[in-house]
Amino acid sequence: MSPQATEQALSRPADNLSIARAVRLWPIEEIAHRLGVPGEAVEPYGRGIAKLDLTAMTALAERPRGRYVVVTSMTPTPPGEGKTTTAIGLVQGLQRLGHTATVALRQPSMGPTLGLKGGATGGGYSQVLPMERINLHLTGDIHAVGAAHNLLAAMVDNHLHHRLEPELDPREVRWQRVIDLNDRALRHLVMGLGGRGDGIPRQGGFEITAASEVMAVLALADSLVDLRRRLGRVIVGLDRSGAPVTAEQIGAAGAMTVLLKEALKPNLLQTLEHAPALIHAGPFGNIAHGNSSIVADHIGLHAGDFVVTEAGFGADMGAERFFNIKCRASGLVPDAAVLVVTVRAMKYHSGRHQVVPGQPLPASLLAESPDEVREGGANLLKQIDNVRAHGLNPVVAINAFPSDHASEVDAIRELAASVGVRAELSRHVSDGGEGALALAEAVAEAAEAGGDFRFLYPAEMPLTAKIERIATRLYGAEGVDFAPGVRARLEAWEHEGYGDLPVCIAKTHMSLSSDPARLGAPTGWRLPVREVRLSAGAGFVYALAGDIRTMPGLNASPAATRLDIDDEGNTVGLY
Amino acid sequence: MSPQATEQALSRPADNLSIARAVRLWPIEEIAHRLGVPGEAVEPYGRGIAKLDLTAMTALAERPRGRYVVVTSMTPTPPGEGKTTTAIGLVQGLQRLGHTATVALRQPSMGPTLGLKGGATGGGYSQVLPMERINLHLTGDIHAVGAAHNLLAAMVDNHLHHRLEPELDPREVRWQRVIDLNDRALRHLVMGLGGRGDGIPRQGGFEITAASEVMAVLALADSLVDLRRRLGRVIVGLDRSGAPVTAEQIGAAGAMTVLLKEALKPNLLQTLEHAPALIHAGPFGNIAHGNSSIVADHIGLHAGDFVVTEAGFGADMGAERFFNIKCRASGLVPDAAVLVVTVRAMKYHSGRHQVVPGQPLPASLLAESPDEVREGGANLLKQIDNVRAHGLNPVVAINAFPSDHASEVDAIRELAASVGVRAELSRHVSDGGEGALALAEAVAEAAEAGGDFRFLYPAEMPLTAKIERIATRLYGAEGVDFAPGVRARLEAWEHEGYGDLPVCIAKTHMSLSSDPARLGAPTGWRLPVREVRLSAGAGFVYALAGDIRTMPGLNASPAATRLDIDDEGNTVGLY
Repeated sequence: MSPQATEQALSRPADNLSIARAVRLWPIEEIAHRLGVPGEAVEPYGRGIAKLDLTAMTALAERPRGRYVVVTSMTPTPPGEGKTTTAIGLVQGLQRLGHTATVALRQPSMGPTLGLKGGATGGGYSQVLPMERINLHLTGDIHAVGAAHNLLAAMVDNHLHHRLEPELDPREVRWQRVIDLNDRALRHLVMGLGGRGDGIPRQGGFEITAASEVMAVLALADSLVDLRRRLGRVIVGLDRSGAPVTAEQIGAAGAMTVLLKEALKPNLLQTLEHAPALIHAGPFGNIAHGNSSIVADHIGLHAGDFVVTEAGFGADMGAERFFNIKCRASGLVPDAAVLVVTVRAMKYHSGRHQVVPGQPLPASLLAESPDEVREGGANLLKQIDNVRAHGLNPVVAINAFPSDHASEVDAIRELAASVGVRAELSRHVSDGGEGALALAEAVAEAAEAGGDFRFLYPAEMPLTAKIERIATRLYGAEGVDFAPGVRARLEAWEHEGYGDLPVCIAKTHMSLSSDPARLGAPTGWRLPVREVRLSAGAGFVYALAGDIRTMPGLNASPAATRLDIDDEGNTVGLY
Repeated sequence: MSPQATEQALSRPADNLSIARAVRLWPIEEIAHRLGVPGEAVEPYGRGIAKLDLTAMTALAERPRGRYVVVTSMTPTPPGEGKTTTAIGLVQGLQRLGHTATVALRQPSMGPTLGLKGGATGGGYSQVLPMERINLHLTGDIHAVGAAHNLLAAMVDNHLHHRLEPELDPREVRWQRVIDLNDRALRHLVMGLGGRGDGIPRQGGFEITAASEVMAVLALADSLVDLRRRLGRVIVGLDRSGAPVTAEQIGAAGAMTVLLKEALKPNLLQTLEHAPALIHAGPFGNIAHGNSSIVADHIGLHAGDFVVTEAGFGADMGAERFFNIKCRASGLVPDAAVLVVTVRAMKYHSGRHQVVPGQPLPASLLAESPDEVREGGANLLKQIDNVRAHGLNPVVAINAFPSDHASEVDAIRELAASVGVRAELSRHVSDGGEGALALAEAVAEAAEAGGDFRFLYPAEMPLTAKIERIATRLYGAEGVDFAPGVRARLEAWEHEGYGDLPVCIAKTHMSLSSDPARLGAPTGWRLPVREVRLSAGAGFVYALAGDIRTMPGLNASPAATRLDIDDEGNTVGLY
C-alpha cells in the first residue's frame, strides 16, 4: 500500500471494512489445531470464531510456557496511539519470523461502538476478524456479564422487597445495574415506584457493563471454581448494622456462575494474516484493571512461543495494573514490554497544540517538527521509567503514520537510545506483519533476554502507602491528598482483612497527573483521592482521583445512525 | 420406565437433568445434513447447537413443502398441560414412523427460568438438548433483542436530550426499556435525574425482553430486509403536535437490524431422540402473538415431512394468534392442529378444586373421578370448536400422567368422539417417541386429509369488529365493552392506515373469559377492553382486557438461589 493510499485508509477508516472483506478466513478449527488445542476443547461459534473450553488449559499445561509480552503506550492523544494495531501487527511479525504467537485482547464494549468511535478491532492490515461479530455481541460474553450482574441486582431488590435476612439497608445498596450501551438517562434514577407490589422505592442507576465488577472478576478468575468464589465475595451493600452483605449471602453467586459458564471460555479468532487472536473479557481501564482475561493468557502461553497482550491506556495506568493486579492474580511473569509511541503524540506532549476530545487532531500536528518531538519526550522517558520500575526494559514501537517525517522518527530513536532503549518503526497498519518485522525481532530478543520482573509494592504494604507509591513513583506526584474519611475507610478495610489487596487508581488517562490538561511529565502536583471503593470479588481496592464516568452518553449524531444494511444485507457504517 | 419411576420423575423434575445427561448428542452438522440444509448455511454455536443462515431458505425453497402442524391446548391449569413435551414427543413419534419431522419452539425467557419455574425444554423423555444452553442465553438472541430495543430507547432519550427533530414530547414516549430478568423494582421509575448532562427527567420503566415489540418483529419477519422495514415502522412516541414518531425517524432502525443479524438465524438443536428442533424467538403470549419464528417454520417445512410448532396458552389465545397473526404474516397454511389435554386439567375445569398459582396442584385432583372429567368437558369442547372455527379438525392429545385412571382417559375419548374428534393417549414423557406413536399416526392422517383453513376475520374488517369477532366467536363473550376513548382510538388508527392489521387480545390465559376464576366454558359475560395499543412494526393492534404484567417479580425463594455448580463444575438446580 502506498503512503498515499495509507493516508486515505487512515482518513477514511471505512476502508478497514474493504480490507477485511478481501480476506478469506481460515476455518477456526485450523487455527486452534496449529496452537495444539485438543479438538474436543474447540467449540465453533459461527464462522471464524470458537470458544476454547478450559479443559484446554489442563491439556496444554505440560507443554513449555511461551514468552509473555505486554503492549502499553506513552500517555495517548484522545484518539489513541494504536496499542491494539501494534499488538496485532507484532504477532503477525512474530509469525513471519517463524514463531507461533497469539494476541490477547479485550472484547470491545458495544456502547462506544454504537456511540462515538465505530469498531475496535485494529485497523488497516493489522485487524482481527470478523470485525462485525467482534464489535457487536461477539459470542455474548458481555451480555452474560450483564445478566449475571443484573440478576444479583434484581435479587438484592427482591431481598429488600421480601425483607429477607440479612436485612439490607436500602440507602446503603452499592450494587448498580448495568447495560452495554451509552445511555445517560439511566445514570441516576429513582426506582421501585408504582405501589406496594413493585419493590422498595430507592435511588439507583446504571453503568456500562464494562464497568461491572463481574467483568473484572471474569477477567481475573483462573477457573470456574475461582470464578464462583470471587462472585460470592462481591459486596452489594450494608445491612442495618453497617456490616457488608455479599452476593453469597443474597444466594446469587451460584446462579451468577452458571450464567457465566460459557463466558469464561476464551474466544479464539484470527488476524488478517491468520495469526491466532484471543479476545476475552473487557473490564474498564479506570475503575478496574483494564486487561483481558487470565485464562486466555494461560492458554496462549502454553500453546505457542509468544502471547502479546494489550493493557489499557498509558503505562502509568494499564501496564501498572497488568503488573500489579493481573500478574499478581495469575502468578504469570512477563518477559517483555512494548511501549507504543507516535510522532503526533510526542508533538502533542510538547503542549503546543490545541486538541479537543471528539474532534479531529489539528493540522498543526502534521507539520515537520523534530523539536516538538523532543519537547514532548519527557512523557516517553517517564513512561519508559514506569515500565523499568517493574524490572523490564521496554522496546519502543513507533507506530508509523503517513504524516511522519524521518527527522521526527530519528528524534524518537535518539531519545530512547539516550536511556538505553531500542526503538523500532513499525508499519503494521499499512504493511501488516511485514511492516512489523524489525519490531518483532527486537521484541523477540528482549523477551529472550528477559528481565527482572518485580511488583511495585508488596501485598502487605498498607493500602494508603500503596496508593502513595503508585502516585509518587509512577505518576510523578509529590504526594497524595486523601479526602476526609478516606484514610479511616482504608484502615477499616485493613482490619476487615482486605489489607493485602492491590490498589487501582481511577484517574484521567490523558495525563500522567490527575489533570487531563497537564501534558508531558508534570511535576509539582499532588494526587487528590476523593473516595475509595472495594471490589472484594475482583480483589482490589480502587481510589477515585478524578471525575470518572461509568456510563457514557451519546452525542447528537451517534455512530448508530450511520449503521445499516445495504440491499444485499451487508452491514454498512461499521469500521 | 415404570409408572412409579415416572411419578417420581414428574414429582422430582431434577431427574430431567439425569435423563438428559445420559444421552450422547449427535453432531449438530449431522442433524442439519439429514434435513438437507446445505453445509455452508450451518454455523455451529457450541456443542449441539447451530444457527442456520437464511440462505438455507432459498436453498430449500425448491423442495416440496411438508405438513404444518400446530400444537395448542385446552385452557391450562397454572403449571400447564404439556404442549411443549407433546410437540417434542410428537416429532419423536413421527420420526419413529419414518418421517422427517422438526419441532419449532419459542426460546424460553431467562427471567422465569431464574425466577419460578426452572427450565422450559420439555421433560422426561421428550426434551430438547442441551437444556442448560437453551434455558440460559442459548445463542444470545434474546440479548440481541434487548440490545436492539434498548439502543432505540437510548437514542430516544438522546433525541430528547439534544432536542433533535422531530421534537419528541417527553410525556408521550411509549418506548420502555427491557431486560431478560424478573425485576419488579424496574417496573416504574423516574430517570434522567442527576443534572443537565444526564438527560431529561421523565417517567419510564422496564419490561421483560419477551414483551418487546422487537421480539414480535423478529418472530414475524421473513427476511433481513423485512426485519429492517418492520423495525423502521416501530412507533416510539408522539411529537409535540401529537403525530407518531418512528424508529426510522430516530435513525435507529438500521443499527437495530445490524444488531439482530445473527438473531434472525434460527437455532437448530435436537431432541433426546435426535429429532431436529428449531428454537427461535420468544414473544409474549398476551400482549404479543406468542409463537416462534416464521423463518424457522419456512426452513423446517421445506426440509422435511412435518413441522410441529407450539402456540402459547390455550386455543383461544396462542392458536388464534397462530392462525390470524402468524399465518397471515407468513402466508403458510396449517394442515393439522393438536389440542393437548390432561385428566387433571379436565377435572380442574369442573370447578371442584382449589388451585392456587405457584403452589402444587391439590391432591384431590389425583383421585379417580370420570364424572369430574365430564364436568370439565365444556372447556375441551369449546376449544375444539375454537380450532374448528379456523377450518381444522383437531386431534386431541391426552398427555398421560401416572395419576390418570383408565376411566378418566376413556371419558375424554368419549367426549371427543361425541363431536367427531379423535383423541389419543400419549406417553411421550415416560416413553419418548415410542409413547407418542398413536398420536403421531393420528396427526399424520389428519394432516394428510388436511382441512379447509380460514382466518377468523378478513383483514378489511374494522378493528372493533375484529375484537368483537374473537371475543364472541372464540371466548364465548356476549359482547365487548370498550372503555371510553377506545373506539375513537381504533377509528383514528383506521384513518391512519392501520385498519388492515390483525388484533391481539391480552387477557388472562387461565380462563376462556377475562376472569381467571371462571373455569369450563363461561357464558353470560362481556369482555372489557380497557385500552388499545399499536405494534406498528410487528403489525398488530393489541387490546388490554385484563391486568397484564409485562415485568414479573421474583418470589421470596427464587429458583436462582438453588442454581449452582458442583465440585466438578456441573450445573445443579436447573430442570
